[in-house]
Amino acid sequence: MLKGQSSKVFENAVSEFASLPGIGKKTAVRLVLHILKQDPKLIEQFGNAITDLSSKIKHCKICHNISDHDVCSICEDKSRDENIICVVENIQDILAIENTQQFKGKYHVLGGILSPMEGIGPSDLNIDSLENRIEKENINELILALSPTMEGDTTNFFLYKKLNKFGIKLSIIARGIAFGDELEYADEITLGRSILNRKPFNGKIF
Amino acid sequence: MLKGQSSKVFENAVSEFASLPGIGKKTAVRLVLHILKQDPKLIEQFGNAITDLSSKIKHCKICHNISDHDVCSICEDKSRDENIICVVENIQDILAIENTQQFKGKYHVLGGILSPMEGIGPSDLNIDSLENRIEKENINELILALSPTMEGDTTNFFLYKKLNKFGIKLSIIARGIAFGDELEYADEITLGRSILNRKPFNGKIF
Repeated sequence: MLKGQSSKVFENAVSEFASLPGIGKKTAVRLVLHILKQDPKLIEQFGNAITDLSSKIKHCKICHNISDHDVCSICEDKSRDENIICVVENIQDILAIENTQQFKGKYHVLGGILSPMEGIGPSDLNIDSLENRIEKENINELILALSPTMEGDTTNFFLYKKLNKFGIKLSIIARGIAFGDELEYADEITLGRSILNRKPFNGKIF
Repeated sequence: MLKGQSSKVFENAVSEFASLPGIGKKTAVRLVLHILKQDPKLIEQFGNAITDLSSKIKHCKICHNISDHDVCSICEDKSRDENIICVVENIQDILAIENTQQFKGKYHVLGGILSPMEGIGPSDLNIDSLENRIEKENINELILALSPTMEGDTTNFFLYKKLNKFGIKLSIIARGIAFGDELEYADEITLGRSILNRKPFNGKIF
């Protein structure tokens, strides 16, 4: 409990904010005091926006993205290429890829990656529904866009074994030295692989 | 608008968080995704804690601190010294002083400090109610605990002129080199004044 608190309501709001990742008690106090200065209507709107997260948000029954309806706006978007599906770990990854504006297909959210350490096995991921989609939808290519970590690669390999039988094109996002990185500070695995996986250069970069 | 948003509800919550000071769009997304992972009951509790800030928080009619009731818990606390009042700019300052555990009197929140630049004049501050308290309550000492800035000192001087007539003891919080500061980095005004305001030393520091 914060010392010198004269209001339980204030204290409650502070401890709710302080429960968020990266927000300590001092920042929480600052945020709540900021909110307190707002118009009561705006404060209510803020509170409702959060309450709505519990009552109004669903998961798309096709791709498992968050959605206000049974099917998310990306799955419903007829202008997007429905023959290509990008498999991602979570919702953040969809936001990150959408921000690049380089992908106009559909998504499939696994809801995690295989991690024996954390007890996450294949049955915890949305793999069955992915197989269902491959069977029912007209899919040409599946892009595996998982993080290039040990767990990510384990999952990539597992998906390869599992989905290879469908005979569709499987691809994996490119790895190498990131844009802006300096060679001398690149880790040796990335640098070594980027040399092994060098590409013919015709004067054009990408 | 965030690109790739499949949910208005999600987007609303993100933009509410992003409206808070020091929280950008990326952090807001991270916070909302964190909240989304919680139990629906906890999410609702969070939302309600914020909504309550608009509907349930009052200002103490004696000292103007925030409170759940007409009179705050500090003003109601019989164990505190009611003969000494600490005048502060805002609620944060009460929290900061209470944290030191060095003050057991009552408070009075001015609700700001005089600032011609921002158009804050004496009538915008809770000075009338302070005079009322001095007249009606049995007050021996008034501690002026405002920030040692230009505006703070202007306000200190204004209060001195205004309250001197009541014949009560007026005091001001000590200024000088802060604990842990290195002399060579102290600003010259503070250092100069701390030499002029030196105190007799009997082997005890404070």
